[in-house]
Amino acid sequence: MMKKLTVIAVLLMISMATFAQQALWGGQNIVSPEIKADNTVTFRLNAPQAVKVELTGDFLPSRKMETPMGVMDAPGVTELIKNDKGVWEYTTPEPLLPELYSYTFVVDGAKVIDPGNVYMIRDVASVTSIFIIGGGRADLYKVNSVPHGTVARRWYESQGLKLTRRITIYTPPGYEAGKENYPVLYLLHGGGGDEEAWIALGRTSQILDNLIAQGKAKPMIVVMPNGNSAQEAAPGESSLGFYVPSMRIQNTQGAMEESFPDIVNFVESNYRTIRQKSARAICGLSMGGFHSFYISQQYPDMFDYIGLFSAAIRPMENATSPIYQNTEDKQKTLFSKNPKLYWIAIGKTDFLYKANQDYLKQLDEKEYKYVYYENDGGHIWRNWRIYLSEFAPMLFK
Amino acid sequence: MMKKLTVIAVLLMISMATFAQQALWGGQNIVSPEIKADNTVTFRLNAPQAVKVELTGDFLPSRKMETPMGVMDAPGVTELIKNDKGVWEYTTPEPLLPELYSYTFVVDGAKVIDPGNVYMIRDVASVTSIFIIGGGRADLYKVNSVPHGTVARRWYESQGLKLTRRITIYTPPGYEAGKENYPVLYLLHGGGGDEEAWIALGRTSQILDNLIAQGKAKPMIVVMPNGNSAQEAAPGESSLGFYVPSMRIQNTQGAMEESFPDIVNFVESNYRTIRQKSARAICGLSMGGFHSFYISQQYPDMFDYIGLFSAAIRPMENATSPIYQNTEDKQKTLFSKNPKLYWIAIGKTDFLYKANQDYLKQLDEKEYKYVYYENDGGHIWRNWRIYLSEFAPMLFK
Repeated sequence: MMKKLTVIAVLLMISMATFAQQALWGGQNIVSPEIKADNTVTFRLNAPQAVKVELTGDFLPSRKMETPMGVMDAPGVTELIKNDKGVWEYTTPEPLLPELYSYTFVVDGAKVIDPGNVYMIRDVASVTSIFIIGGGRADLYKVNSVPHGTVARRWYESQGLKLTRRITIYTPPGYEAGKENYPVLYLLHGGGGDEEAWIALGRTSQILDNLIAQGKAKPMIVVMPNGNSAQEAAPGESSLGFYVPSMRIQNTQGAMEESFPDIVNFVESNYRTIRQKSARAICGLSMGGFHSFYISQQYPDMFDYIGLFSAAIRPMENATSPIYQNTEDKQKTLFSKNPKLYWIAIGKTDFLYKANQDYLKQLDEKEYKYVYYENDGGHIWRNWRIYLSEFAPMLFK
Repeated sequence: MMKKLTVIAVLLMISMATFAQQALWGGQNIVSPEIKADNTVTFRLNAPQAVKVELTGDFLPSRKMETPMGVMDAPGVTELIKNDKGVWEYTTPEPLLPELYSYTFVVDGAKVIDPGNVYMIRDVASVTSIFIIGGGRADLYKVNSVPHGTVARRWYESQGLKLTRRITIYTPPGYEAGKENYPVLYLLHGGGGDEEAWIALGRTSQILDNLIAQGKAKPMIVVMPNGNSAQEAAPGESSLGFYVPSMRIQNTQGAMEESFPDIVNFVESNYRTIRQKSARAICGLSMGGFHSFYISQQYPDMFDYIGLFSAAIRPMENATSPIYQNTEDKQKTLFSKNPKLYWIAIGKTDFLYKANQDYLKQLDEKEYKYVYYENDGGHIWRNWRIYLSEFAPMLFK
């Protein structure tokens, strides 16, 4: 009964599907980016009628740019050259150092991602193409042949916020098969971010898989909640539909900090966790550092490990929440309980650098114990991946 | 100690971050797509120097296109018009019907996604911008204010394939809090797809959340494995790194079908499942329909519900696996055990339409019981979302 098609017929079938798909969406046979053996990289765009094609990316030398706030660093721009097939090309003059890089093209004024590259990340309302130059620390950002944890997107009830909210949870390799209890890192995003930010831009699951496989970090659960207290879920993941994400920070009136125990309770009643201060860490970037600051001092018995990554420190003047009151007393209590690690990290050109230096001075005056980590660069994900890679190995030891 | 910044200083801080981010990646303040109250849609692209900007999308009237395989449907193309601000625009002449739509721009020959729209889906090696016109069946594809299931990406050991492999698993709302056991749907992707295909292009979690909330589908676990037996994980999710995905089907020699019990065993030993034939369903699109065909007849006691969506039916002539042998006997056995549902769905213009009609005739000749569903359209995700929406409500009742 089952007559077999010839190989040719099957290949035709597949070709047709490929053709239809390419005709539909313009699949191209050019390779971009092409990472050469020496780590120089060639970018290509097929745009035969274009007048000018530029490339902007965080691997190009940055430009100084006049802004209303003074001179700031802006990413470099370079031009691509059209070859005789109508394909625009640019090759980096030097090999690139190991890193996860982002870039876009500008085609006759339109800033677009690379249609030859399906790997991209959204940051707030912008999407960029990405690639990784391996080696050194950047190997932590790659998927390697090591045991992999599970990443779940699920929903929890926040009594405090009166919302059902989406949350991203990493459980380490072996979690499901085993019976042991695990420590938990609460990892908070910045303004404009959401419960997708750390897993996508931060490469959290790759960094944790790799650090755990290398024996450098203890197996741990990593909890990535949504830090916008008025928001149910990331853009596109709630009943608000497909709206344009924005940097506007909603509800900084202490609601997130106040309701944070809802998240801890959810995690501790749904996962096999070690329910004690020495097995709980909290850290975050920018707004998430701000949240970590106020949550850790509001609940001084909750976390033994606290990390402020490029943190905003001060609340808005009109913030009336009790969360932001009596901070001096609360800090005294927090530090009197000797947290095992109070870690502050910032880049030299971060616009919050001075605010953080002022904060360090205050800690010094009070003789509160902390560890400070400083590196180059500004308020960027490259630094936050580094900070996570540095912070996680220090936890739960 | 904690001096408060003024509101202005905080806003400045936020503005600077926004500015830096926009300068970096070209965030634009134009809205695209803009879905009007009457469901007409305006598309916009800021490309002041462009000579020509076109739009291609599955909502435009299709064109006939000469191909080596004969005349085929290709998606429509239309031109955008530049307004006096250098922004190119196009508004649909008619309201669009409810559906999840895909589109790209063509800027002076470069096919690119809409930089104003952060919502996009990868299909094999192409990425398209997407939007949803709500109403009717398309409401199933939206995130609505209903209880949400959990979506986990995890890794399992395949003894048969000698690989650790990534798998996507949906557990229904209430799974974690409850104690009951659930039926399981195994949902298989097509050629060029992977364990991300059904969750992204197929809107599986939205469809299931909504059907369950409406009482139309039973709460069930949905398991979305990777159907390429040589592949550990989706492109970008394995140690192969960020390569260009392709339609090339690897390893159709029966390995996926033969090793399928590894997946069932993994699911049944890791989740609270009902371990019986009446609580197991398998279905898939195209190559996944092919897999469902051979897996269901290879293990005739495993599944009571079988769904072939735009299925490829016949193996390659050089396929020597015992999986593809004695299919007549195997089918006789399968149907002698009275599966509760053998469901075949295909669109009238699908290139596999004739192969499926031939198969229906064979089933008729043998008087094997099946249910047939036919609709318009071809070998496209719009149809596969419809088939899932039709198939899931018939299961486990």
